[in-house]
Amino acid sequence: MTAPLKSIEGAGELAPSMAKAMGELGHNGRLAARVLALASPAQKDQALDRMAAAVRAQKALILAANAEDIGEARAGGLSGAFLDRLALDEARVEAIATGIEVVRALKDPVGTVTESWTRPNGMTIERVRVPLGVIGIIYESRPNVTADAGALCLKSGNAAILRGGSDSMRSSRAIHAALSAGLRDAGLPEAAIQLVPTRDRAAVGLMLTGLDGNIDVIVPRGGKSLVARVQAEARVPVFAHLEGVCHVYVDKAASLDMAKKIVLNAKMRRTGVCGAAETLLIDRSAAATHLKPLIEMLIDVGCEIRGDKATQAADKRVKQASEEDWSTEYLDAIITAKVVDGVSEAIEHIERYGSHHTDAIVTEDKVAAERFLREVDSAIVLHNASTQFADGGEFGFGAEIGIATGRLHARGPVGVDQLTTFKYRIRGSGQTRP
Amino acid sequence: MTAPLKSIEGAGELAPSMAKAMGELGHNGRLAARVLALASPAQKDQALDRMAAAVRAQKALILAANAEDIGEARAGGLSGAFLDRLALDEARVEAIATGIEVVRALKDPVGTVTESWTRPNGMTIERVRVPLGVIGIIYESRPNVTADAGALCLKSGNAAILRGGSDSMRSSRAIHAALSAGLRDAGLPEAAIQLVPTRDRAAVGLMLTGLDGNIDVIVPRGGKSLVARVQAEARVPVFAHLEGVCHVYVDKAASLDMAKKIVLNAKMRRTGVCGAAETLLIDRSAAATHLKPLIEMLIDVGCEIRGDKATQAADKRVKQASEEDWSTEYLDAIITAKVVDGVSEAIEHIERYGSHHTDAIVTEDKVAAERFLREVDSAIVLHNASTQFADGGEFGFGAEIGIATGRLHARGPVGVDQLTTFKYRIRGSGQTRP
Repeated sequence: MTAPLKSIEGAGELAPSMAKAMGELGHNGRLAARVLALASPAQKDQALDRMAAAVRAQKALILAANAEDIGEARAGGLSGAFLDRLALDEARVEAIATGIEVVRALKDPVGTVTESWTRPNGMTIERVRVPLGVIGIIYESRPNVTADAGALCLKSGNAAILRGGSDSMRSSRAIHAALSAGLRDAGLPEAAIQLVPTRDRAAVGLMLTGLDGNIDVIVPRGGKSLVARVQAEARVPVFAHLEGVCHVYVDKAASLDMAKKIVLNAKMRRTGVCGAAETLLIDRSAAATHLKPLIEMLIDVGCEIRGDKATQAADKRVKQASEEDWSTEYLDAIITAKVVDGVSEAIEHIERYGSHHTDAIVTEDKVAAERFLREVDSAIVLHNASTQFADGGEFGFGAEIGIATGRLHARGPVGVDQLTTFKYRIRGSGQTRP
Repeated sequence: MTAPLKSIEGAGELAPSMAKAMGELGHNGRLAARVLALASPAQKDQALDRMAAAVRAQKALILAANAEDIGEARAGGLSGAFLDRLALDEARVEAIATGIEVVRALKDPVGTVTESWTRPNGMTIERVRVPLGVIGIIYESRPNVTADAGALCLKSGNAAILRGGSDSMRSSRAIHAALSAGLRDAGLPEAAIQLVPTRDRAAVGLMLTGLDGNIDVIVPRGGKSLVARVQAEARVPVFAHLEGVCHVYVDKAASLDMAKKIVLNAKMRRTGVCGAAETLLIDRSAAATHLKPLIEMLIDVGCEIRGDKATQAADKRVKQASEEDWSTEYLDAIITAKVVDGVSEAIEHIERYGSHHTDAIVTEDKVAAERFLREVDSAIVLHNASTQFADGGEFGFGAEIGIATGRLHARGPVGVDQLTTFKYRIRGSGQTRP
């Protein structure tokens, strides 16, 4: 990935006035979070409606701001892929508005009772979802994240503090102005969604310390260098995945047709997503029948294969894989391939080289499948389905703020439910503890 | 609380051999966690049975070790309360064994499917509980925590790395030997429950950094100074509460009898527990009838009251509360008392001075009660019940490793369920992503 390192590099001193401004951002976020936590679903939905309308109404302003960002980025010599992510057009602005409406249509998680029980003394205990509080989102120069992340936080009753890539500052500001208008129209505090008002990179460092306890969780959205930096420096919890080194294991009891379909989709549907397969493992007992067809299929569609000796023996076009290859996230039309001794060695390989993101087994053998699903310690494990289903939308969450591979709180796609915590409500009739 | 600061103070250099030993502890913990995650409920229960039996069989050794610890602590001039927590006798050793059996009898959380649904394309998605991994427990000189924490981690499939107070090292070692014997007997790795083998305080610092990613969460068990230090320095998630500044609000619609029962229990049942009430708030509209009886009741049982002007006016024996008093956790027979303007000011006071631990309202007015339960942002909120129910056992969790006031992952009593995370298992029939 092409994380523009400069957006978070450096831990220089922030000007005192800016440090003060950041402190106020945190303080105001906390106050807004309290209002949002108690806001009705209707009021939040009204704000989201107005935000979408304001994005459409202010389309010209947003595009003009984006044109300035693009001009400066181009002058600065930034690359094609970078410019593509930064650039907006009418269709993309419309997609931003629609995205807000998709979030609006989700079920409001706040107040949902997830468990309830009655104690022998007659007290009832309920576990109920409440917002996390204030969420800091640090992202690269993708202006649409401003609206996506802001909308998801609002729907889940959280205040958002957004820090976008410095190259997209004008675009983000223009989109943020539309979000602010929506909040105002619905009578919600504008501090519900705040944009860090500086390109100064030291502001990111301050966010990672939690702004005096006023940020509850950080979500980095971007490439590996951004995520690595955030994970290394954050003093508050982080929802993120560093990489998705995802595997497809083709078992001896796999249908070749199904294996071809799933491997092709898992690797090649989109090579740049975190759920794309990076390693193909094939059971030695199936190698005679399945190995060659799978390799040929991949090479025919332009995928480079780096393999072990057994795989190289099956096709001369397979390159030799190095030790590093097995744990590399290519995010490209490249895959490593290895012949393994059954499900045991497949699991062992995945535990050793994988990133605990998403891994799949293809087999008609239910016992092997259940073993794989049980023993592979990844956020998402699949049987007879493509790893590219690693996505909040595909899970039915409607939208996601990212995918997490951490073990605490959120794991897998992080949707609005995962942006909440809970509290216990106890109703009694005078009970005291003996 | 009387946390013996010396057990974690100082961040001196650890001898290279000890740093290596700590690294191995982490590595071995991770390997053991993998075995535990896949161990059957029966095997874990067998280990817990054998552990309880070994504690009983090795009672004489445990008591002898404890006598040495006590002798040294006494010679070092340690206080009565400290010695009481450190001291074991036959009954306390039996309670340790019984405690392990209580944990054994809990429902095994690992493998429980907490949610499942089917996607329009026919894939089924399950959310299933899996262990967190490796849990580091840092505690004071209470030898019983060695067994309690070890048993809870084992039941939930987690490896434990235990670091007890240095004054209880011999006692903890003797108890740990019994736990190891139980693990061996059941064929589980002894590294499932490891005891840090040094009194060197720098070992704690290493644990707080996560031992190269080999500790997933830290649980501090002890007084405020221990918890504060752990929260400030830990680079891994922490399950803890710093303090429990718990409130009881007596509304105008409260039954005086019930209010008396609940206030008395909440403050005086045990004053040293985190769920003990530290502040009494009384609705101005109920002051004429409720204030004096409540204050007299408390003073009659030996509770000191520090109040605002209105409370002082009701009884001359009420002392003047200072600004700091309102946010002080006394853990003693002292309470602050204030007259407030109804549920609104009560909520405002609790949000301003409370610690988001446990707060209660006493009222017959359902609307006021529901508003309080909704708006007070604490891990546990109660209507017409004592704050002293803030306890895993009272929740029906069977046992708890502590109470958390953090917002992520675990909140309120942390039982075996909260010592797990989850993964998604997806079963398909060849689905690929369009």
